[in-house]
Amino acid sequence: MPKQLTVLDAEVCCAPLATAAVPADAAADVAAAFKAMGDPVRLQLLSMITSAAAGEICVCDLTPAFELTGPTISHHLKVLREAGLVESDRRGTWVWYRANRSRLAALSAVLDVTPAD
Amino acid sequence: MPKQLTVLDAEVCCAPLATAAVPADAAADVAAAFKAMGDPVRLQLLSMITSAAAGEICVCDLTPAFELTGPTISHHLKVLREAGLVESDRRGTWVWYRANRSRLAALSAVLDVTPAD
Repeated sequence: MPKQLTVLDAEVCCAPLATAAVPADAAADVAAAFKAMGDPVRLQLLSMITSAAAGEICVCDLTPAFELTGPTISHHLKVLREAGLVESDRRGTWVWYRANRSRLAALSAVLDVTPAD
Repeated sequence: MPKQLTVLDAEVCCAPLATAAVPADAAADVAAAFKAMGDPVRLQLLSMITSAAAGEICVCDLTPAFELTGPTISHHLKVLREAGLVESDRRGTWVWYRANRSRLAALSAVLDVTPAD
């Protein structure tokens, strides 16, 4: 069953793990994002999208990097998109992907264990 | 089949997603850590452990926070431990948990999208 998660803004979620327990309602959203990244291929796709020099990358440049079929890559990209980690738009034949940088920054902050001064 | 992942140090893994694609060998390790956090209960457990005032917390203080059985909580804690996110030791009747802060810092850094100056 496909589902579209409610994506929380960096301001909304969450305090770093090191400072407070994650509330149950926020935990579902954050865990869903981590779950989406919990696959090696999806993590590599996300890193290729996030590090793309132009700030976005064509699916036609993602697929050849893996020994996987186009539909399999498309499925992984859909999971990343539904978790709010990437955004996409179609231009002509191809779909282009860019990272949701505020979402990644919020997730990075959740894991930040640097003591606050 | 239980498995113990090789836990990479912060120095070893990885460059931030925003600067380079994650290599395939590192992707498996990092994805396993995110997968372990990809469950709301495990994320809440991890946050309770990481934010524990004494730097560690007794399993006897974790279990009552959830409407779950002890064995279920123990299973989730085992997943976190096998992913290298927490460490534990038994003292007398109870097991005590503390966060692997260098591992969390490394994962936070992977998701860091702050432009380098």
